[in-house]
Amino acid sequence: MSTMPCSIMMNSLLSLTLLLSLPSLEAAPQRTPMSFPNIFIARCQEFQEVIKPELFENNPKNCSTLWYKFASSFMYKDPCNVKSEDYQDFLNEADHYMDTKDKTMYWSGMTDFVIAYTAYSKTYTTIRDQLAVYILKNSDVWCGQEGKPDMNFKQCPGFENCPNSAVGAFWKQMSKHFASKVRGTVHLMLNASSPAAFRENSIFATHELPNLNRANTPRLFVHMVSNLGSTPVEECVTGSVARLKELVEKKGMAFHCDLNNRSIRHFQCVDAADHKGCPQEQVCPDIAHGNSQQKQQKSSGENGANSLDGVVITHLLCLFLALYRSSSV
Amino acid sequence: MSTMPCSIMMNSLLSLTLLLSLPSLEAAPQRTPMSFPNIFIARCQEFQEVIKPELFENNPKNCSTLWYKFASSFMYKDPCNVKSEDYQDFLNEADHYMDTKDKTMYWSGMTDFVIAYTAYSKTYTTIRDQLAVYILKNSDVWCGQEGKPDMNFKQCPGFENCPNSAVGAFWKQMSKHFASKVRGTVHLMLNASSPAAFRENSIFATHELPNLNRANTPRLFVHMVSNLGSTPVEECVTGSVARLKELVEKKGMAFHCDLNNRSIRHFQCVDAADHKGCPQEQVCPDIAHGNSQQKQQKSSGENGANSLDGVVITHLLCLFLALYRSSSV
Repeated sequence: MSTMPCSIMMNSLLSLTLLLSLPSLEAAPQRTPMSFPNIFIARCQEFQEVIKPELFENNPKNCSTLWYKFASSFMYKDPCNVKSEDYQDFLNEADHYMDTKDKTMYWSGMTDFVIAYTAYSKTYTTIRDQLAVYILKNSDVWCGQEGKPDMNFKQCPGFENCPNSAVGAFWKQMSKHFASKVRGTVHLMLNASSPAAFRENSIFATHELPNLNRANTPRLFVHMVSNLGSTPVEECVTGSVARLKELVEKKGMAFHCDLNNRSIRHFQCVDAADHKGCPQEQVCPDIAHGNSQQKQQKSSGENGANSLDGVVITHLLCLFLALYRSSSV
Repeated sequence: MSTMPCSIMMNSLLSLTLLLSLPSLEAAPQRTPMSFPNIFIARCQEFQEVIKPELFENNPKNCSTLWYKFASSFMYKDPCNVKSEDYQDFLNEADHYMDTKDKTMYWSGMTDFVIAYTAYSKTYTTIRDQLAVYILKNSDVWCGQEGKPDMNFKQCPGFENCPNSAVGAFWKQMSKHFASKVRGTVHLMLNASSPAAFRENSIFATHELPNLNRANTPRLFVHMVSNLGSTPVEECVTGSVARLKELVEKKGMAFHCDLNNRSIRHFQCVDAADHKGCPQEQVCPDIAHGNSQQKQQKSSGENGANSLDGVVITHLLCLFLALYRSSSV
């Protein structure tokens, strides 16, 4: 999964500016927050005491221990030479049960959108429902340094020239760890308006897909999403997605794919409801109900009801349309 | 605004179970979290250092001072006899600039839905964008007691028999405080499937509306939202909303109202995309573009293209429909 740091890294390659309804999650400053240890511990407490108390009642995690194991992974180390494996001790300590069956959503290249979508839709869970990620989700930059103090609160290196950064190393290990916990059908959201929806150097390709296997996850369902109002650059059976299909099928997993499914389209349309790429109020009324469920109403009391003749004519035209469409399928 | 505690209080009156796509924000336990002071301070730090650093760079808040002022409002006090005014010192200390012009959303009776909607849509801001509320948003239950210890970590009284609870008193004062900061057109979301969409004993009616005035907020725009697939119980010009209109106009403010606006409908439809109350893919193609922007595609490569004849017949029927509909307006 291309997590936050990766999305920043790819910003120059993938322009998502046209993906209407992308939420404006502000970029955090590129430095370790001054209160990082305290924020870390408090979020760990909050997750266990307020967000998911039912998961930890009989098996509470010691948040100070978690901080110690986490910080040991990168403190006093060259900020561009952190080993992914060094986070494993922290990940083992933070590990907890999570129901992932048939509802895990991965993504690549459209982080903010998927975070907002899965935070709202009840259909999916993501890596962000894990304690280790909840703790870090708003503090997405941190780094250490070889000398004192143990962490660098002034400036962390960018991702371009620093592939083994403290943050990058964490996400690689976390992605691998999470992939081992996932069960059933796995979902993946890809940007159909990108010329390389599936990138073979993405975290999904390098750290997640290799750790999925047919026994635990027999099926991958790709959801391609294009910008509103533009023709998809990539679709389910062409380009980089065809390559993904090949890789998935080589693992013995089944491959499914849809383009702009209606749930995701509705989500894109929340802040662009009048866009012509959005589903519209039905032109033809639902004959069983006599009218559309949707109506706009002014406080002046207009109700827009047609006369009986109008309803009959609309129904007649719609009937012809429906008959024609069903006969042509 | 009917904030979390109020929505809990009203749960027996207002059944929102049919409001499809309501997010399942789990109810927090009815007690002060054990780590409340630490969570409070860390969220205060996080808001200033990570979420909105630009607002506090030149005017940082001391989070320990904020905790002291907040806790003094209810610690060592009868948990059912907390005065709203006691929180004012904390609210003054936590106060900060916020652009509210024409985009503040209030709500009454559908808290979880509005929280999710405004968290995603870029159109609105809410009381939750204030530091004081960010700090408390996931810790929505707290209380003190007259003896030691200063806070009660075991059980806080329910809202039914405790109108001056620590939590209720906070929200009343916070609502009043926030109302004084709001400018321009004010929005209000109401549940059109409730028999009393506007309640004269709601926090909106008692603590927010009275603190809005024509000079700062010349207009109230009500957005009525009904459950998908059910006829609204209340609409813009009838019942309790007519009473609200009367109160608003008596203050010299203008009153506007819509029912099931398309942005909100799309949001409701994310987890119910096939519901017949949801906007659908267009039956009639956009003639200028030759086809609909939306399409479903299977990985087998079906593309569903009509033959040229099919396109012509569809366009002809849709043309008649469009001509008829435009002539009947």
